[in-house]
Amino acid sequence: MNKLLIVGTVAFDAIETPFGKTDKILGGAGTYIGLSASHFNLQSAIVSVVGDDFPQEYLDLLTARNIDISGLEVVKGGKTFFWSGKYHNDLNSRDTLATELNVLADFQPKVPQNFKNADVVMLGNLHPMVQSSVLDQMEVKPKLVVLDTMNFWMDCALEDLLNVIKRVDVITINDEEARQLSGEYSLVKAAAKIHTMGPKYVVIKKGEHGALIFHDKEVFFAPALPLEEVFDPTGAGDTFAGGFAGFITQSENISFENMKTAIIHGSNLASFCVEKFGTERMLKLSKEEVVARLKQFKSLTQFEIAL
Amino acid sequence: MNKLLIVGTVAFDAIETPFGKTDKILGGAGTYIGLSASHFNLQSAIVSVVGDDFPQEYLDLLTARNIDISGLEVVKGGKTFFWSGKYHNDLNSRDTLATELNVLADFQPKVPQNFKNADVVMLGNLHPMVQSSVLDQMEVKPKLVVLDTMNFWMDCALEDLLNVIKRVDVITINDEEARQLSGEYSLVKAAAKIHTMGPKYVVIKKGEHGALIFHDKEVFFAPALPLEEVFDPTGAGDTFAGGFAGFITQSENISFENMKTAIIHGSNLASFCVEKFGTERMLKLSKEEVVARLKQFKSLTQFEIAL
Repeated sequence: MNKLLIVGTVAFDAIETPFGKTDKILGGAGTYIGLSASHFNLQSAIVSVVGDDFPQEYLDLLTARNIDISGLEVVKGGKTFFWSGKYHNDLNSRDTLATELNVLADFQPKVPQNFKNADVVMLGNLHPMVQSSVLDQMEVKPKLVVLDTMNFWMDCALEDLLNVIKRVDVITINDEEARQLSGEYSLVKAAAKIHTMGPKYVVIKKGEHGALIFHDKEVFFAPALPLEEVFDPTGAGDTFAGGFAGFITQSENISFENMKTAIIHGSNLASFCVEKFGTERMLKLSKEEVVARLKQFKSLTQFEIAL
Repeated sequence: MNKLLIVGTVAFDAIETPFGKTDKILGGAGTYIGLSASHFNLQSAIVSVVGDDFPQEYLDLLTARNIDISGLEVVKGGKTFFWSGKYHNDLNSRDTLATELNVLADFQPKVPQNFKNADVVMLGNLHPMVQSSVLDQMEVKPKLVVLDTMNFWMDCALEDLLNVIKRVDVITINDEEARQLSGEYSLVKAAAKIHTMGPKYVVIKKGEHGALIFHDKEVFFAPALPLEEVFDPTGAGDTFAGGFAGFITQSENISFENMKTAIIHGSNLASFCVEKFGTERMLKLSKEEVVARLKQFKSLTQFEIAL
């Protein structure tokens, strides 16, 4: 089985949407990526950090999905990273109510020896120095490195971010972040500029409006599945990235054609994530549900045309 | 050849975008629909009205595309409908600067005898009473009636609008209008509610974010082609509707599968419309360009997945 190395936060989230609010629940980019990638036939490991306030029950949820957590450091006496946010009525924007870095502030990632030859590395949203440090520890050059990031690092650690972006094959960011990073409003121009920063593949996530992947002059679009109700968008972008990286790892094929299929898998998994609060839907997602919805994606997008 | 009957404004537009502004140029929903539909193998006619200030040269542009203008009334001493608008920087919203109804105020549509048995009727955005009057004049029930409308009629002629909506097979409206008409925020729920108002097919246009077509429990999505630069969105929705109706007319097939292909044709033609001011790009569009871009739509959306 091929190996996927994931770095990303494992955290407590407190979420408020127009449909309700939660106490501190399981969250974090690394968590969503791991749960999403666990739908593929692969070995995965999460490199992250939590405090000893993090419940064993949450760790068990990860190992139950065959995720290796030997690189998930538990800091004695430390407190787990906590994020709290409130979504606006349209669910397209949110206010951050609290960000308590806690053990994340001094996090030094340690890649398990067994994953220093991982086939694919998925660098979830974290300080770009942490992302770089993970790449520095690889003993075999990965077949594909995927990086997710956000505007926060563009604002406060741009140089570090540009340094790690240089080293990756695929970047996944949202439309506003692509505009900020490139200084271009047109997403076509933004992607072209981001190509010149290093990544051969630029994935632009547009939330409910789907996702684009650019490669040289080629572009592919995966829609988001139209849903009756979006309940909580938290983790959707990470779930998308996890599905993308997971499928690539399983298929061991980094052609652009295969990446098209990979972002369909990512969109498919993300469409479940938003149906319940936090990780609830992802934790109970069956293989049958995943396959049934992939069929919906086919009928949503495939057409016949005589040329 | 099958027949397409188009009703819609033929007008003067004055447009301002971040890229420049125009004097009074050729515009109107009927014009854009007609130019777009002229890319298919069909007979078309426009039912509309202009004043005698409308240049012969503009009429010649329509007849040069084989559009029958015997139902395009020229009112002696009358002034042509005039619309002026200014787009905001993101081109997603606009302010209307002027709307001078002029000859449109008392418009009584007259369907040419030769088109009272049209196969497809495309009711472009106009007062719903005008749209109804065109349907009243048909002597043979059309195979398909498509209606486009806008929020303006929901605000000031809702009852008339609901009466004509009952009589059509397909409605095309934008996302905000679908929300207003249905009172539902979710587009899936909005489409379901609009189905109950009459139309078996609900097309929701999302501008740069593509278009959805709903039919019972089925849904299909056509993306907008990612463009380097959008120059002027005026007429894009009408061009989309004209491509949809034109392809259906040519193919004489009103299955949902064929409608999928039809909205791809609509999106394809609309992608050209926005590249220049007004009708400029549509007037010089070659068959080769249309086919080349349809190929781009295929590679933009088609993928392989093993299920």
